Amino acid sequence: MTEHFTIALDAMGGDHAPACVVDGAEIALRKKPDLRFIFVGDENKIIPLLEKHGHLAACSSVVHTDEMVENDVKPSVALRQGRKSSMQLVINEVKAGNAHAVVSGGNTGALMAMSKLALRMLPGIKRPAAASLFPTETGEVVMLDLGANLEADATELFQFAIMGDAYARGVLGIEHPTVGLLNVGEEDNKGHPEIQEAADLIRESDLDLNFQGFVEGNHVPMGKVDVVVTDGFSGNVMLKTAEGTAKLISKHMKDAFNSNWATKLSYIIASKTMSNLKKRLDPRRYNGAMFLGLNGVAVKSHGGSDAYGVSHAIRTAADLLESNANRLITEELKLSGMLQETKEAADA
Amino acid sequence: MTEHFTIALDAMGGDHAPACVVDGAEIALRKKPDLRFIFVGDENKIIPLLEKHGHLAACSSVVHTDEMVENDVKPSVALRQGRKSSMQLVINEVKAGNAHAVVSGGNTGALMAMSKLALRMLPGIKRPAAASLFPTETGEVVMLDLGANLEADATELFQFAIMGDAYARGVLGIEHPTVGLLNVGEEDNKGHPEIQEAADLIRESDLDLNFQGFVEGNHVPMGKVDVVVTDGFSGNVMLKTAEGTAKLISKHMKDAFNSNWATKLSYIIASKTMSNLKKRLDPRRYNGAMFLGLNGVAVKSHGGSDAYGVSHAIRTAADLLESNANRLITEELKLSGMLQETKEAADA
Repeated sequence: MTEHFTIALDAMGGDHAPACVVDGAEIALRKKPDLRFIFVGDENKIIPLLEKHGHLAACSSVVHTDEMVENDVKPSVALRQGRKSSMQLVINEVKAGNAHAVVSGGNTGALMAMSKLALRMLPGIKRPAAASLFPTETGEVVMLDLGANLEADATELFQFAIMGDAYARGVLGIEHPTVGLLNVGEEDNKGHPEIQEAADLIRESDLDLNFQGFVEGNHVPMGKVDVVVTDGFSGNVMLKTAEGTAKLISKHMKDAFNSNWATKLSYIIASKTMSNLKKRLDPRRYNGAMFLGLNGVAVKSHGGSDAYGVSHAIRTAADLLESNANRLITEELKLSGMLQETKEAADA
Repeated sequence: MTEHFTIALDAMGGDHAPACVVDGAEIALRKKPDLRFIFVGDENKIIPLLEKHGHLAACSSVVHTDEMVENDVKPSVALRQGRKSSMQLVINEVKAGNAHAVVSGGNTGALMAMSKLALRMLPGIKRPAAASLFPTETGEVVMLDLGANLEADATELFQFAIMGDAYARGVLGIEHPTVGLLNVGEEDNKGHPEIQEAADLIRESDLDLNFQGFVEGNHVPMGKVDVVVTDGFSGNVMLKTAEGTAKLISKHMKDAFNSNWATKLSYIIASKTMSNLKKRLDPRRYNGAMFLGLNGVAVKSHGGSDAYGVSHAIRTAADLLESNANRLITEELKLSGMLQETKEAADA
């Protein structure tokens, strides 16, 4: 029998909420019919939307609140003032055991802070990381951290490598994923001391990580590694620069095809292939930043997502649950000796 | 009368040296007939290549050495062991007043270290920055630092902003360039303390910089600002990720056009427009990282460049000389009060 996973959805987070959240759940349910949902938000808006989707309504419940976390508040303020916000309540549903995972399109910093406080971290983990997939020449790459921690020390980078490896094995099904540390060059003497130290930690550990050393920004879209590890500042720059560059070139291509009758004709002839390519690179297919390292599953959907994007964030949460990614992370931490160290430190 | 600028060329730096250096100079000379060249490297290889280009040979002289700086040596080692290397000798030509600028496709760290030591920095400048242009939706953006300083404090970031502004005004001819600081979000409370402090320094200074606050990775290819300022680690990640993503999409497009007879026909029909687009985004057109802040002009050409790429690095050096970018930087530093402070510190 398939397990029924329940996803708690923040129906007030994101530019197009709650409609994109309800419609996104409807799309996700078609792909994964065993899912169940708890919508948290203004029931006066959610219930009429659910009534349009009979099957979804039958798999869903609603928790009412009309409070939400604004996008521009600091995490500390959100924690104090947002106790009845849809974001806090949606996390509480997981904490209370009513749901298995959280998906929200709201304030990223607040979602991370609230999730950390309510769900805690996996034993041994120093800080959670935001991770996401990105298309490459050869398939997909897991990138982390994408902004949860602006700085990361060597041990944290090592833990990010473990979490990314576990995700690539569990969810992407890659047997022995290649892992690289983002740097400004491939030579051993390049980069900050913490990156060099992280490389040493990974190489010297008992874990059998398929470590490829340092990778540069241009290696990531080429698909040189399956997992790329960095601090949250560089990761955020990398992700957003890649998104922006892809958007720029798409726009140029569109303008080029629209420039005269010949190019328009050319587009019509090639339209099927072009639309396949567009689909493959569609950023909505990569929506959903996972907060790895939490003792629970929390996924951040892009604030500007439409229903199709939200459905991918929901599927990301479901994938994490189905693959039992957190168990894989804990097992690797044990093998690395870091769980032991933490226990000893706690016992001392 | 037009001034004759002499460019000293490291004829041993780069994968395809010396042929690409000689051929690159030939291309640059066609665009800028007033240029003069000093080639430094193995004369047994350079002279036969020059003999193929009579006009170039007439504008050039050769300084012989058969030593070079290897790509994988540390800058400190290059400084000690590379005294007779083509890279050191090419910089010496500028120091001795025989040439106005240096162009090299060799080891970046070594070129920066040797240039700093021999040419010194402009008065008041704490550290030079590597800067480059990148194509955007609206034109071009000046990005710095791209890897000369892995970390940068607030004052250094402020100085990078001044240098980028001066370059955009002098070389790109933008009257009042917009300047942004790279960050993980646009809100004032985002990012490292040094970035927030740099924003304060820029806002509070007497300089009339057209400062737009924080920009994110995706804003850069969109052309939101004319100058984007960051530390060398993030800048390197940004530049290389953008290059890699552009390459990935070009490859996908090529595959898409090659996938069947219809798409091949489509490409033939649209080929003129597509080749214009390809030309516009050609990375060789953006070859040439300028070391801004030096008391002299030094340009790093990409190691893998062909002759066309090298010609652009040479033109970058010529543009810096013609626009007198270093004078503009010094004037802005004076206005900012930083030159005064430095003088006082030196007097004290």
